[in-house]
Amino acid sequence: MPIIGMHHSPLVQKFGIPRQPNLVQVPSHIKMLKPYDDPDAFEGLMAFSHLWIIWQTHGNREWVKFKPKVRPPRMGGNAKLGVFATRSTYRPSSLGLSVVKLEDIEVNGGVTLHLSGADMVDGTPIVDIKPYLPYSDAVSGAVSNFAPEAPMPKAVTVDPIAQADFVCLTNQGHLQPSDFDIIEALIAQDPRPAYRQHEVDVNSVMRYRKVDIEFRMLNNQTLNIKAVRLVGSS
Amino acid sequence: MPIIGMHHSPLVQKFGIPRQPNLVQVPSHIKMLKPYDDPDAFEGLMAFSHLWIIWQTHGNREWVKFKPKVRPPRMGGNAKLGVFATRSTYRPSSLGLSVVKLEDIEVNGGVTLHLSGADMVDGTPIVDIKPYLPYSDAVSGAVSNFAPEAPMPKAVTVDPIAQADFVCLTNQGHLQPSDFDIIEALIAQDPRPAYRQHEVDVNSVMRYRKVDIEFRMLNNQTLNIKAVRLVGSS
Repeated sequence: MPIIGMHHSPLVQKFGIPRQPNLVQVPSHIKMLKPYDDPDAFEGLMAFSHLWIIWQTHGNREWVKFKPKVRPPRMGGNAKLGVFATRSTYRPSSLGLSVVKLEDIEVNGGVTLHLSGADMVDGTPIVDIKPYLPYSDAVSGAVSNFAPEAPMPKAVTVDPIAQADFVCLTNQGHLQPSDFDIIEALIAQDPRPAYRQHEVDVNSVMRYRKVDIEFRMLNNQTLNIKAVRLVGSS
Repeated sequence: MPIIGMHHSPLVQKFGIPRQPNLVQVPSHIKMLKPYDDPDAFEGLMAFSHLWIIWQTHGNREWVKFKPKVRPPRMGGNAKLGVFATRSTYRPSSLGLSVVKLEDIEVNGGVTLHLSGADMVDGTPIVDIKPYLPYSDAVSGAVSNFAPEAPMPKAVTVDPIAQADFVCLTNQGHLQPSDFDIIEALIAQDPRPAYRQHEVDVNSVMRYRKVDIEFRMLNNQTLNIKAVRLVGSS
């Protein structure tokens, strides 16, 4: 199975990755690898607004024996479901499947696909790219009794000090002005595992590019961004 | 990449396979292979009406050198498009992706998934099965400028002799009564390659189970089923 490209995202750790594609319009890109970086291979692709990405769930290499059941995060991490009834990355194929928005195709001595809405971490190896065909892929009347809707985003507040840190890190070139809306939307998804989402006043850290975002839940169930600091600084 | 199951379909040849999933509700099933035939691995799956099937485009083994462009059948077989702008099976990953309807899960000393709407040929090796999540997979507002709609089915007529043959072969147990509607719907998709769809009064043969369906286009653009006969008989 050839690796045709590498995914590059500001989400450099699994913590913070939206639980499904298109929940948050995180910008990211796929840099195609040789020989798959031939612009001819993408002729006609801009006719499609969305793409299917098939990717490798690297990092699961230690997983060798088949486990029929998994604990999907959306179920609170306690309930077990059959692996084929979930999108868990712990599966025999080690293949992930995500629909993303195609923002642009950059041809520049190679090919880079600019995306938004991906739920793949930085450094994810890409196995295939296919156009999203609305008339067959958007199944009208498809039903799921588990996970029937997108999770409701939570309210987010930002401490003035975190706001000031954001401006400062943006001025220093570590963040882009557009990143803050993305970061807020990612925190609003509550990146904490379901079994920890009741915890109040306990700090969590989400890494975005080279910046750590510290946040916690307040008594009123609001998620509060407390600090925004460069990785490695205290 | 483990093969987790095999697809069994009345469509035993590529000719006649619908050009996208769910165009025709062809019944088919996936027989899971060991150790993936554990009923536990499917717990919760019946909550979903539709599934993603990732399958191997076997038979493309001779394809080794990367070809950036392909001739998709929907474009008439003449226009070339970038391989990643198509669902062509001639692609680096050799992976196909289809959404199918889950009709039933049969547990019987193993697991068989009963499907409809598959566009995979009989004998296709299955690599992964994932639930279709309407809220993230059915992208509202997704656009494609190529292949924007399902192809319009053509009118089909059935010669009285073909009708009689169908009844006879059904009585003999080679077909099921429900097969005829499926066969008519498959012919209405006009299985002939796009560059041959103008040909009038030229016979084509679609194989379904152990039966050959002979059809041709009449002057008025109607597709006429001329004969239904057991494979090997004249």
